[in-house]
Amino acid sequence: MQLTKAVITAAGKNQRTLPLQSLVDRDGVSKTALTIIIEEALAAGVEEIAVVICPGDAAAYRAAAGPHAGRLQFIEQAEPRGYGHAVWCAREFTGAAPFLLLVGDHLYVSTTGSGCARQLVNLAVTAEAAVSAVQATHESKLPYYGAIGGRRVASHNGVYEITDVLEKPTPTEAEQRLVVPGLRAGHYLCFFGMHVLTPTVMDLLGDLVTERGAQSGVHLSTALSRLARKERYLAFEASGRRYDIGARYGLLTAQLALALEGSDRDEVLSGLVELLAQRTR
Amino acid sequence: MQLTKAVITAAGKNQRTLPLQSLVDRDGVSKTALTIIIEEALAAGVEEIAVVICPGDAAAYRAAAGPHAGRLQFIEQAEPRGYGHAVWCAREFTGAAPFLLLVGDHLYVSTTGSGCARQLVNLAVTAEAAVSAVQATHESKLPYYGAIGGRRVASHNGVYEITDVLEKPTPTEAEQRLVVPGLRAGHYLCFFGMHVLTPTVMDLLGDLVTERGAQSGVHLSTALSRLARKERYLAFEASGRRYDIGARYGLLTAQLALALEGSDRDEVLSGLVELLAQRTR
Repeated sequence: MQLTKAVITAAGKNQRTLPLQSLVDRDGVSKTALTIIIEEALAAGVEEIAVVICPGDAAAYRAAAGPHAGRLQFIEQAEPRGYGHAVWCAREFTGAAPFLLLVGDHLYVSTTGSGCARQLVNLAVTAEAAVSAVQATHESKLPYYGAIGGRRVASHNGVYEITDVLEKPTPTEAEQRLVVPGLRAGHYLCFFGMHVLTPTVMDLLGDLVTERGAQSGVHLSTALSRLARKERYLAFEASGRRYDIGARYGLLTAQLALALEGSDRDEVLSGLVELLAQRTR
Repeated sequence: MQLTKAVITAAGKNQRTLPLQSLVDRDGVSKTALTIIIEEALAAGVEEIAVVICPGDAAAYRAAAGPHAGRLQFIEQAEPRGYGHAVWCAREFTGAAPFLLLVGDHLYVSTTGSGCARQLVNLAVTAEAAVSAVQATHESKLPYYGAIGGRRVASHNGVYEITDVLEKPTPTEAEQRLVVPGLRAGHYLCFFGMHVLTPTVMDLLGDLVTERGAQSGVHLSTALSRLARKERYLAFEASGRRYDIGARYGLLTAQLALALEGSDRDEVLSGLVELLAQRTR
């Protein structure tokens, strides 16, 4: 498998302006969140990127992509029909090729020398299979994520063969279908917001779009649960942390995480101390 | 003097996207920087606001103004001819009225019960005069600011009668013309980015625009130095801190300052501790 294409989704109605926000990256350079995400993809070997946007957002996104604008192709999701539908909008772009899928409102800070997307792509290319990045997540957070069930691949640390996928499972559903031996009690493998997917996923999404009818939303997780029954489909605990910049104080947390892991660590830490000392109350 | 109008300048070429950035305000609500600045003006009694923008930015700014969009009037600065020229672009909006002048890339955190702009407007209305907010600044930072010379007004703490204004003075110029008795050694009163100005300033700016010719930039400080010779013109050390969100890590610092002075202080502090603890290096 060779991987040269990425899809970034940014058409969610509460998500539209997030990729346009400015942060200082680990290298000390001010960039938009979109640029940081694009560079995550490029560092994973990607050459062409499609961004799925709300109609009318192309100009703002092109400006926010800075030096990478020339690599981007914009695809408008005409109606808000869910994350799965947004991915499906990129089917002509991906064609017969596997692709890296990223979301426009998450930033990643790797804890190893190579980026989270790079780690994921390396595994997908070696295994010749679809791979979703996951992280062990406490059951109290199940209402926010898609989660998987599966079994460890003996030869690879942190790699799982996926048997089941559920979107925002209840604790009962999770206990019945998603327990993964070896994880801490009360923890499940939830999606990390980053996947390498095969063309089969686009076909499965197409089926769902047809089945659901024109008004309904389509979950990516539904297609991925079908994928697990059709193809070898892996999960992978990437070495890194993800930051949801759409959460309250999400931009602040992401910026601090980037700064504390980056070249300006000392400058930012001393600024922090100064700020705490300055307070008057 | 009654003050009901404000002008916000946001046409600087490196400044255009700053007012569109999202922050969580002291009240815990996510807002754009533009909305926070507008609310600073409204809390000072302003009713009508003109925003001076680059051509083509109106739609993005209208969206960023959220609930206040209806109060705004957009004025395009057709050519980048400096800060003074940007202010002058609003002359028809201000007409014969005094106005509050704010910049689109500064946020303020007051250390008293009333906002910095409110404090400034209160003084201007009482004194029936133009007033610029200033803060004592070390001479090493003179290359970044406009600075004033003057003498203390005996009856009012932190209020000065301005005799001279220089844009980015050299240390020698500052020593010869801007020493203010009573300040710490090596400190000067530099602009804080917030003024209440009289219609006279628009006339003085108009003179400069004509004198300089069509290609040249116009500094606000030049007009203000002429103002000091024509009218009573005061400086005021506001109780508060300013945050330049256009500086490196400026958004981060402003967000932390807002959060640490706001309703989410404990949540943000504990998030900070968690983040520091999580680091792996």
